[in-house]
Amino acid sequence: MGELRVRSALVTGANRGIGLGFVRHLLALPNPPEWVFAGCRDPKGQRAQVSGHSPPHLASAEVTDPASIKAAAASVGERLKGSGLNLLINNAGIVRANKLDNETLKDMSEVYMTNTIAPLLLSQAFLPLLKKAAQGSPGSGLSCNKAAIVNISSNGGSIKEVYLWEGIQAACYRCSKAALNMLTRCQSMGYREHGILCIAFHPGWVKTDMGGDFEDKVREFLAKSVGGMLKVLSNLSDKDSGSFLDWEGKVMAW
Amino acid sequence: MGELRVRSALVTGANRGIGLGFVRHLLALPNPPEWVFAGCRDPKGQRAQVSGHSPPHLASAEVTDPASIKAAAASVGERLKGSGLNLLINNAGIVRANKLDNETLKDMSEVYMTNTIAPLLLSQAFLPLLKKAAQGSPGSGLSCNKAAIVNISSNGGSIKEVYLWEGIQAACYRCSKAALNMLTRCQSMGYREHGILCIAFHPGWVKTDMGGDFEDKVREFLAKSVGGMLKVLSNLSDKDSGSFLDWEGKVMAW
Ligand SMILES: NC(=O)c1ccc[n+]([C@@H]2O[C@H](COP(=O)([O-])OP(=O)(O)OC[C@H]3O[C@@H](n4cnc5c(N)ncnc54)[C@H](OP(=O)(O)O)[C@@H]3O)[C@@H](O)[C@H]2O)c1
Ligand SMILES: NC(=O)c1ccc[n+]([C@@H]2O[C@H](COP(=O)([O-])OP(=O)(O)OC[C@H]3O[C@@H](n4cnc5c(N)ncnc54)[C@H](OP(=O)(O)O)[C@@H]3O)[C@@H](O)[C@H]2O)c1
Repeated sequence: MGELRVRSALVTGANRGIGLGFVRHLLALPNPPEWVFAGCRDPKGQRAQVSGHSPPHLASAEVTDPASIKAAAASVGERLKGSGLNLLINNAGIVRANKLDNETLKDMSEVYMTNTIAPLLLSQAFLPLLKKAAQGSPGSGLSCNKAAIVNISSNGGSIKEVYLWEGIQAACYRCSKAALNMLTRCQSMGYREHGILCIAFHPGWVKTDMGGDFEDKVREFLAKSVGGMLKVLSNLSDKDSGSFLDWEGKVMAW
Repeated sequence: MGELRVRSALVTGANRGIGLGFVRHLLALPNPPEWVFAGCRDPKGQRAQVSGHSPPHLASAEVTDPASIKAAAASVGERLKGSGLNLLINNAGIVRANKLDNETLKDMSEVYMTNTIAPLLLSQAFLPLLKKAAQGSPGSGLSCNKAAIVNISSNGGSIKEVYLWEGIQAACYRCSKAALNMLTRCQSMGYREHGILCIAFHPGWVKTDMGGDFEDKVREFLAKSVGGMLKVLSNLSDKDSGSFLDWEGKVMAW
């Protein structure tokens, strides 16, 4: 049972919520990464809480815009000065709380764009840096200390369980996260030969803007969720690539 | 073990391939439906093989166009003269045989639009007719003889198995079909109270334009696939709604 030791990580949607939690927890590790890139589409925006904290490296990334993604990858590559990227955490996500009857083409498309297509495009754009990190790391097995794509999915993406249907139907969200789980499987098949581990996470029910706000409980559970995921990540190996796990490492049903 | 007895059915993408197979087989049932609507976006087009056969009722439907879907539902409603629609078979589908490395935003969006969003929109548009059919049928349980939404999915949508990755990667297609399976689950939860059964099918490997063409084998396997699915449909009840089955009725892994 090791401890996460990476030189570099990038988190999308890192100006608030779970993404910001990842940035803070990474910076607070016993051996923090040299580079923690906080991906934000609007780092100076109203909702950007990231700026008030020990400064990570900002990376402007509107994840629904291929040009913005490419620019982010180029800028990160430059700042890494020849090093690779160990961890790509595809965290940015949106939800639309529609009922099945008023689900729309627009919401289906937009949520799929942000939650499913963007993680594909980000992984493609950062692939050269992830490969470089894998090649530069010792050992032959897969590990997050070498190179990994971490897709933040949801228990809402479990086709078998259809959790909490009575509470929030949001077919747009459920479909996008089931598809993200499929993408994770595809990436695990396609990127294994490059030494890149791929994983989908259910972060738990985290009381962020998306998950709802319950005052004091927020911090505690956010810390539990993100701390839990980082611990799980540190212990993953070949056999785990392509899995769907919760923040405690339990296998989730597809 | 019953036999399929419906008064009306609509099949999208029915001018060729599996969709055309459904139309022919429905018309050839011992008790054929009074109305078989063959949904085609271009009924007079080059690829329309439907016209050469015992004339079903044509229904113009470009399934990526909400206006066209609404017009089709209105026209079908009118022609049913107060009857409901028993079977909606969402069959139209596309694939793009991309590798993971050259998968694109455009293909991801377009395939999702046709394979996932369209079945949602079609089901919404035909919901009043499906409800009417359910209300007009005796008995309290779910059954395809009352009202059903049949989503033609694929084993390519199985997240657990990722079948035939070495043969065709097509993440765009796999993600869209995993999402379609999720949609089927959502529909089964949402439409149960209306008496509508919902099912996702893997039709087998059928040698159509999409599945590849191998001369004589085509007809035989198409018949097996479509005949098999119609037989399976005739035997479904409450407990099956929301399942993912193959053309022989075997449960597929999500
Ligand atoms: N909270 C939960 O209970 C829960 C449960 C299961 C899964 N999840 C998943 O966890 C992830 C994070 O959720 P959260 O609770 O932290 O959500 P959140 O508080 O709503 O934060 C979402 C983050 O994503 C960013 N984002 C959204 N669209 C973006 C875009 N197009 N480009 C760049 N950034 C974008 C937001 O940036 P802006 O500030 O610019 O909007 C924000 O930083 C999501 O993928 C979500 O589906 C959350
Ligand atoms: N063949 C297989 O081995 C196989 C295996 C698993 C699953 N499936 C699934 O089975 C279904 C039928 O496949 P198939 O093999 O019959 O495919 P196909 O031979 O390529 O026929 C596809 C049908 O869908 C129609 N279509 C496509 N886009 C449309 C749109 N936007 N609006 C209206 N119609 C549209 C096509 O119409 P046009 O002629 O106008 O293009 C055609 O009628 C698909 O959902 C496919 O994913 C097939």
